Amino acid sequence: MLTYSFEDRGNDTLYEYLYKQIKKDINTQKLKPREKLPSKRALAKHLSISTITVENAYNQLAVEGYIYSVPRSGFFVSDITAREAAGNANISTKASVPEDKKSRTGPQSSPGKIHSVIPKEKRSEFIDFTSNSTTTENFPFATWNKLMRNTLSENRDSLMIKSPSEGVIQLREAIANYLYQFRGIIASPEQIVVGAGTEYLYGLIIQLLGFDKTYAVEDPGYQKISRIYAANKVKCVHITLDEDGVNIDALKGSKADVLHISPSHHFPTGLVTPVSRRYELLNWASEHENRYIIEDDYDSEFRLLGKPIPALQSIDTRDKVIYINTFSKSLTSTIRISYMVLPKTLMERYKNELSFYACTVSNFEQYTLAKFIDQGYFERHINRTRNYYRKIRDEILSNIKSHMDNKKSYIMEEDAGLHFLLKVDTSINDKELVQRARRNGIIISCLSQYYYDKANAREHILVINYSGIKLDSISEGVERLYGTF
Amino acid sequence: MLTYSFEDRGNDTLYEYLYKQIKKDINTQKLKPREKLPSKRALAKHLSISTITVENAYNQLAVEGYIYSVPRSGFFVSDITAREAAGNANISTKASVPEDKKSRTGPQSSPGKIHSVIPKEKRSEFIDFTSNSTTTENFPFATWNKLMRNTLSENRDSLMIKSPSEGVIQLREAIANYLYQFRGIIASPEQIVVGAGTEYLYGLIIQLLGFDKTYAVEDPGYQKISRIYAANKVKCVHITLDEDGVNIDALKGSKADVLHISPSHHFPTGLVTPVSRRYELLNWASEHENRYIIEDDYDSEFRLLGKPIPALQSIDTRDKVIYINTFSKSLTSTIRISYMVLPKTLMERYKNELSFYACTVSNFEQYTLAKFIDQGYFERHINRTRNYYRKIRDEILSNIKSHMDNKKSYIMEEDAGLHFLLKVDTSINDKELVQRARRNGIIISCLSQYYYDKANAREHILVINYSGIKLDSISEGVERLYGTF
Repeated sequence: MLTYSFEDRGNDTLYEYLYKQIKKDINTQKLKPREKLPSKRALAKHLSISTITVENAYNQLAVEGYIYSVPRSGFFVSDITAREAAGNANISTKASVPEDKKSRTGPQSSPGKIHSVIPKEKRSEFIDFTSNSTTTENFPFATWNKLMRNTLSENRDSLMIKSPSEGVIQLREAIANYLYQFRGIIASPEQIVVGAGTEYLYGLIIQLLGFDKTYAVEDPGYQKISRIYAANKVKCVHITLDEDGVNIDALKGSKADVLHISPSHHFPTGLVTPVSRRYELLNWASEHENRYIIEDDYDSEFRLLGKPIPALQSIDTRDKVIYINTFSKSLTSTIRISYMVLPKTLMERYKNELSFYACTVSNFEQYTLAKFIDQGYFERHINRTRNYYRKIRDEILSNIKSHMDNKKSYIMEEDAGLHFLLKVDTSINDKELVQRARRNGIIISCLSQYYYDKANAREHILVINYSGIKLDSISEGVERLYGTF
Repeated sequence: MLTYSFEDRGNDTLYEYLYKQIKKDINTQKLKPREKLPSKRALAKHLSISTITVENAYNQLAVEGYIYSVPRSGFFVSDITAREAAGNANISTKASVPEDKKSRTGPQSSPGKIHSVIPKEKRSEFIDFTSNSTTTENFPFATWNKLMRNTLSENRDSLMIKSPSEGVIQLREAIANYLYQFRGIIASPEQIVVGAGTEYLYGLIIQLLGFDKTYAVEDPGYQKISRIYAANKVKCVHITLDEDGVNIDALKGSKADVLHISPSHHFPTGLVTPVSRRYELLNWASEHENRYIIEDDYDSEFRLLGKPIPALQSIDTRDKVIYINTFSKSLTSTIRISYMVLPKTLMERYKNELSFYACTVSNFEQYTLAKFIDQGYFERHINRTRNYYRKIRDEILSNIKSHMDNKKSYIMEEDAGLHFLLKVDTSINDKELVQRARRNGIIISCLSQYYYDKANAREHILVINYSGIKLDSISEGVERLYGTF
């Protein structure tokens, strides 16, 4: 009969230990397929343990398929010979770590804590003109903390109720009001879909409009957008820009169905598409029922001079524009909440085809953000942040101007969102420029990097993104930048 | 010269009002394309306002493309005739709401708050045996609140630093430790990808493994999975189950590349795939380099009897299993945090092809959850919740048993996760059964609804999901349920 010494069982209970020992014997074929196991009572007596202990061990082995029971006959060993081909590993449980796996996971003090083998990131750069992150000073920690606490006490029940696929109605109402008051956009809350970042929403839009459609993006443009289309294996064409935005003839020649643009502040050139071209684009969209325009209004809150540019969506009378915006730019990139406003026909399609998806944003943050907007904190936050960015921009510009006498350079498009272009006079090519800057501790990108068709790319134009820059690093940062060319 | 009375300007500033008036004149063609505007100084004098006011209005109009400047000559009206074809809407700004849009948005007290026209959800059912939501009593509000507050004070800087695409390393380490201690899974934190829900991760997996692959799902099974494959326009085949899980011959005949299963607790039958079949499945996967198994371990924490079933991933020695699990089931479905463990080769592919995606979970919740796991709260929460569910299950079972004498019925698979099957003896068909129950205030689903191939569907088997049930509603709920057949 099966005999096991329980002395080496360590921290295992009797039942766990017995289960593991029998499993081992089955895995090593000490117990053969179809072999009959002793009765529970007999084994219990033999090992001087209780019948319940044996029963628990047998049951667990049976559930996992190592043994099977035959009514009125007892337990038998299963045939798991398929295992030979599959690689002969142990089934690991809490205490049994297969040796062949240990080696795969790199150095670790098993069974202690598992730590990452990747060294924690060490940031060696002095200033990063490419970062989209926001600075700690600007995030309203105290307010957010207060509202999150309120949410956790006031909204207990609704926090546990599954959000509609499109987001909780309180947040969609808050967004609709915000859009109405600050962007001149009339959208009913029922047209709004909330999601965990614009990148996620781009993916949903593809599922909504079709994998068989051709998507057009701006060239130059924000490269992530075309990467998302590529990752989704849909056809993506790049449309050249002229001085008014997307070139209409190029668009018409492209056979695109869907146009993805940022008409109020193009990245990275800062170009604003004038109203005449906007109407031309809407006309293009109206020519075919499958045509749509995705308006990515990513940093419209941060126009530093004059009034905000009205959204393309606000002059669209034919339901051709999908408006999309994010709180990642205005609040912090590390809170993942974006939204889109769908034309009514598309919203119906969404309801029918895609609303089985769970909303990707946690209720906790949805309710907190709704309070943040409703109670006026968001507006105040935007105003304060806009002033902050104005200060940062002015400081960068004045530092740049102080270097202009020695080194020819020219500032382009300074009033729009959180970046501008700086044309510099140098014979160094862009690639070398970026590398030299990096050696000086400066992360910078060049306009030419954002072109798909490199033949059109203009050299020596730096993209100065200042959303993640701190005031006290500007003077040295700009000096180091000018020291690279 | 342009003449405007500033008396009707309401709350607008002089500049805003002037800007709107000129825009209106351009939109209505009172000002014709290419017409020259008066000089700033002349108009200012004429209207008795400052030159700066005129300059601001002209600049805004120029930025939006309504007028253009010719150096040393002045400002001219743009040609926006494309607008005629595009539908002749006004460009709306804060105070100007186009009339044609107002009507589209349904009743609203514009310009007051926008509210949803959809009535707030009114739940008329007495008990819902299909809900996946968790109850308010079970969520650890106080602890979560405390840890969120700690996160907001301790992690200020890291909260603002963009999470790696795969999630912050602290959370991935916490998950790796949890998996090691409680699921017998050895995964390094570098193999883990965190995302906003398993549904989101399924989409990522398609992008990772290929839109050209054939995905196999269980029949019967959790229908959302095949809907996600359908929404992504990939080929999806349904594999019949036998008593050990996915039928191997059917799988081999299906030409599937990727198999998507829940081997430790099938939904909704509760079936546990025995170890012999597990090895057969791994062998199948090993036969071709493109073959993978997605192991969806969605409620493994809630096995109420015996030890947890070891994960398929833990006996995979050939890097063929993608393990996926969620905190939506164990914590609350309204916090959207799931994760997957990728085999090393797939993780490399992810790094190369998909790590440009931003992580979809907010840093705030990532750090809070990491603390929740690391400080032992998660383990305690699971234990407490498991006890709670055991109580709920026992209460439901004892209530069912008290009705069995009158109405024949039979309980199947009661020990596994948060649902079991109840076979009832009735001549009413399933569709009618569900409708009758609904009229009795009971939301219920039948096993037959989860079959793709309806020919295999067995009738009269109810799926009793009790994760969202409250203790005090059980007695009446079960009575009402038995009153329907």
